[in-house]
Amino acid sequence: MAVYTEVSDEGLIAFVADYGIGEVLSCKGIAEGVENSNFLLTTSSGLFILTLYEKRVNPADLPFFLGLLDHLAASGVPCPVPVRGRDGQALRRLSGRPAVIVSFLAGMWPRRITPEHCADVGRGLAEFHVAGSDFEMTRKNDLSLPDWRPLFERSHDRADEVMSGLGDKLEMELVGLETGWPEDLPSGVIHADLFPDNVFFRGGHLSGIIDFYFACTDAYAYDIAICLNAWCFEVDGSFNITKARRMLGNYRKVRELTDAELMALPVLAKGAAMRFLLTRLYDWLNTPVDALVTRKDPLEYWRKLRFHGRVEGPGAYGLEL
Amino acid sequence: MAVYTEVSDEGLIAFVADYGIGEVLSCKGIAEGVENSNFLLTTSSGLFILTLYEKRVNPADLPFFLGLLDHLAASGVPCPVPVRGRDGQALRRLSGRPAVIVSFLAGMWPRRITPEHCADVGRGLAEFHVAGSDFEMTRKNDLSLPDWRPLFERSHDRADEVMSGLGDKLEMELVGLETGWPEDLPSGVIHADLFPDNVFFRGGHLSGIIDFYFACTDAYAYDIAICLNAWCFEVDGSFNITKARRMLGNYRKVRELTDAELMALPVLAKGAAMRFLLTRLYDWLNTPVDALVTRKDPLEYWRKLRFHGRVEGPGAYGLEL
Repeated sequence: MAVYTEVSDEGLIAFVADYGIGEVLSCKGIAEGVENSNFLLTTSSGLFILTLYEKRVNPADLPFFLGLLDHLAASGVPCPVPVRGRDGQALRRLSGRPAVIVSFLAGMWPRRITPEHCADVGRGLAEFHVAGSDFEMTRKNDLSLPDWRPLFERSHDRADEVMSGLGDKLEMELVGLETGWPEDLPSGVIHADLFPDNVFFRGGHLSGIIDFYFACTDAYAYDIAICLNAWCFEVDGSFNITKARRMLGNYRKVRELTDAELMALPVLAKGAAMRFLLTRLYDWLNTPVDALVTRKDPLEYWRKLRFHGRVEGPGAYGLEL
Repeated sequence: MAVYTEVSDEGLIAFVADYGIGEVLSCKGIAEGVENSNFLLTTSSGLFILTLYEKRVNPADLPFFLGLLDHLAASGVPCPVPVRGRDGQALRRLSGRPAVIVSFLAGMWPRRITPEHCADVGRGLAEFHVAGSDFEMTRKNDLSLPDWRPLFERSHDRADEVMSGLGDKLEMELVGLETGWPEDLPSGVIHADLFPDNVFFRGGHLSGIIDFYFACTDAYAYDIAICLNAWCFEVDGSFNITKARRMLGNYRKVRELTDAELMALPVLAKGAAMRFLLTRLYDWLNTPVDALVTRKDPLEYWRKLRFHGRVEGPGAYGLEL
């Protein structure tokens, strides 16, 4: 669930009075999401999302995130648009937290992924990459290759609690990634967390992309690799090449991949699996079983990592080379 | 938090198609509430609340609850109105649970209670009692005097974990309530859980009453006693007689209290405190410290019980007799 900070009725009414969005009609905490406190705010002029930024977001990053949303929305990406107060500022404070109001996006995230969803995600991701390519701010990816080893060290001693031998296996895979990680791939703003619960669909088509709080400057193909992992595996762990083909094929209709990007996909997909494996592993080992947040199985990403380790080349993803 | 059951996008679209409320635009789980799963549903025709009934609600009671909402709404009480499907039925099924869609109510519940809120609650409660007086269905209060002893027995042995001597003290108070409980007071449908988070205000005035899932047939004055406890004590434990006077005074403008009701108020208020004390005590002793649901302090209600035990008569509540 995702309401960590209480918002008082009086505090909210005073807060909203600094905008030109009418009278507050209601404000309900949203149960989804794990990073920030999110509320569905209804006013006499419509629906909005109110977000209070909690500790896991660095306040210094907020101008990047909000500037990115403005930039993307102006380029036609269906993302939340920050609403500015009467003084022109979008980033404000409420209940002692940095807070913003953004536009509401219609749609629901898909629980059962179809190849059509993957096709739309491929196109949407490419359009996002193209739209962000002239965004002038940058933000370092702080969950990238150099960050994995320190993250791993925090779980290394206890990794075998999750699966016998996992610590040694991860050590070996990390060395492999550290020696074989591609450099100088085309880069720009990536979403870095484009999981199904961050993509809305309406009438069978992509209607919104949300949750840009991992967005950063990194290789575009790494973002594709994250999506391959998040969208193209079945619940039973098998890789669905049809979904991958639709995703990558539609991506390439909007933004062509270089040969270097194509060849790098297997190692990027392994790295993307490592990144989510390591954060899930840490959370798994450090979250009480009956805590507020549902723990996600790190081994799901171990199996994905192994899949990419066995593929012979980018053809395994249904790519026509 | 209050989303125990996941609703799939496909399941929801099929579910909503059985109503005449347009296309689903979004559906977000609401973090508030502890009994059922609640979602804020937006469709092309507006805002609604979708509720999935979880285990703590007896399905056999649902026709009473939904019938009551229809009856109250028709009498002008600002409560959620069940939306009927194309076949005329309001009570349906979704994700394996009994489910209803009700109208959305604007407003926010007050975090800091003022005498004005109490005045509005007094009037609203009386209007609710009058509106419900010709509702033909009945439902036994299953958290009333005869239920307190078995409930107490489930916590008796461990009560002293919360406060030294609490077990013996509660035993003594229970005997007192069992011998002195008033009979034959004016009765009808009561809300039985009219806490501040179940009352919405907009522009400083009561705009909605929600959460009728403890509603039952019992003494009206017992409902008043619950409200005295829920609305008229300050955070420091002191009783605010001004709030009580405004609440009771406004109640009596709509529905006059009989002498028997007035004289019974102190014991009813003790009983109302006992009822919430016992459920909180049980939850306190049986909920893990780091669980999903916030535990409420049972001793808050022990202190309220003791307050009512010391008063000399209904004049203590600011009543003009």
